[in-house]
Amino acid sequence: MPAKAEQALHSSLPSVTSVAKVFVRRVVGETVEDDSPDVLAVEEPLEIRIGISQSEHRAISITMRTPGEDAELAAGFLFTEGILTSPDQIKQIRHCGLKIGKGKSVVDRADALNSNTIRVDLNDGVDIDFKRLERHFYTTSSCGVCGKSSIAALHTGAKKLSDLDRPRVDPDLINTLPEILRASQDVFDQTGGLHASALFTTDGELQIVREDVGRHNALDKVIGVKYLADELPLSDKILLVSGRASFELVQKALMAGIPIMVAVGAPSSLAVELAEEFGMTLAGFVRDDSFNVYTGKSRIV
Amino acid sequence: MPAKAEQALHSSLPSVTSVAKVFVRRVVGETVEDDSPDVLAVEEPLEIRIGISQSEHRAISITMRTPGEDAELAAGFLFTEGILTSPDQIKQIRHCGLKIGKGKSVVDRADALNSNTIRVDLNDGVDIDFKRLERHFYTTSSCGVCGKSSIAALHTGAKKLSDLDRPRVDPDLINTLPEILRASQDVFDQTGGLHASALFTTDGELQIVREDVGRHNALDKVIGVKYLADELPLSDKILLVSGRASFELVQKALMAGIPIMVAVGAPSSLAVELAEEFGMTLAGFVRDDSFNVYTGKSRIV
Repeated sequence: MPAKAEQALHSSLPSVTSVAKVFVRRVVGETVEDDSPDVLAVEEPLEIRIGISQSEHRAISITMRTPGEDAELAAGFLFTEGILTSPDQIKQIRHCGLKIGKGKSVVDRADALNSNTIRVDLNDGVDIDFKRLERHFYTTSSCGVCGKSSIAALHTGAKKLSDLDRPRVDPDLINTLPEILRASQDVFDQTGGLHASALFTTDGELQIVREDVGRHNALDKVIGVKYLADELPLSDKILLVSGRASFELVQKALMAGIPIMVAVGAPSSLAVELAEEFGMTLAGFVRDDSFNVYTGKSRIV
Repeated sequence: MPAKAEQALHSSLPSVTSVAKVFVRRVVGETVEDDSPDVLAVEEPLEIRIGISQSEHRAISITMRTPGEDAELAAGFLFTEGILTSPDQIKQIRHCGLKIGKGKSVVDRADALNSNTIRVDLNDGVDIDFKRLERHFYTTSSCGVCGKSSIAALHTGAKKLSDLDRPRVDPDLINTLPEILRASQDVFDQTGGLHASALFTTDGELQIVREDVGRHNALDKVIGVKYLADELPLSDKILLVSGRASFELVQKALMAGIPIMVAVGAPSSLAVELAEEFGMTLAGFVRDDSFNVYTGKSRIV
């Protein structure tokens, strides 16, 4: 990503909070307590748009996310979905349509809505296969072939990991990761309501952690940071996710070339199949000094 | 839904299993155990299509789901997304493109993929606003209005709950629900990897429970059962969800007219805002004989 775009990235982040205050009535057994203040994880829609030219741009997705790192989220999403491939394709990323009213600095409702739209402007000559996107989201066909094209589109272009790209890791190291993650989860501590994704070195050092109400968003934010810094693939990193390992999360991790993925919860059948197919080491249920290894077992020794 | 369609519904359910067997390597402390069998929750893509006429049908959505109740899931999804409104609109629901090869009964890979496509055929004269759907999924517009139309589309047409539609419930009853749900979660017991949605009467009697790798799918399955039985709105029911309460889950519950929603986990800010706006009672963190009430507090006494 060019320096100009990087500057735009940082200026595109409005001042937001990840927690909202509410008054909650706590009930303990038969006792109804007086209302007291509590905090919740913020959830807001984000519309991600791609700017193709000065005047034309297209909405690609709406995701329910925790505000605060929208540029990284948008970039990470566009990369892990196979829509963008290199940070050089991006000219700038900015929130769309934020207008300040004449003579007043108050942001009105329309403006607040608009700050939930982010626009990724592409450099001249960058070619996006919008037809493929349209097929993915909305298709018409005869019954004989129905399903195949769009379900095939679930594979967004991840490459098999080579043997060279897959480090070996000590079991002890895996067991230390959840505690390090938990200690760094600011918003979760307050709200109990957020997913997290964290990137570790193969020495067990925490590099990046991101939180979000959506687990796919937390991962897209992590990958977005590395994508914008032109530091992909993440061939020497371990990914830890706070919840379960779904097909979608494994898919996104594979797009970023992550060789080892560890989930606090259970993996799904398709997550294991995909990890196996692409040569990823997938572990789950990491808690209380134990875990399960589902694929790429020889890499954890 | 007419008798013919109901028959089709039941015949549309192929024999599927919700769990997959794998061999897992368990690591406890520094001990790497021998590989042993384990079970995972099955995750597969489902493409939901609407059949408009004999020859034309359209893909509406692809969701990653646990197979087994695809017809209910499809019907529930189409209802809670505001695409269908009455079971009378449905002629039949069936899996699409399942073909048996000449002289062999083995289902090949192409057939297996096709069984991940379900088609909801509509009765003649049923009008679907496909333009609205297209706007929702994929739009082009100038920057001045960007975001508004599609984010507004997040409200899919739920109605405010009237005072008459909102029963009062005893706190003790709320505290009994999680244990009843847990006792009925077959697949979760085996895999530890599934979300659940459960519908209770206001006397605390369990009516329906459905599990899925996707929490929105578990809820769509529950609502789909009631939608197909023409038993909406669910004005006298309590909904319990196994995880967190997101905007999307509250939105779906409101479409079905559910007055009281209880989450085992935390709600998001937008879930609370939406529940407040539509008059729903929303409780969270129900565990160990205690819970929090966020909205509609006067209904739990």
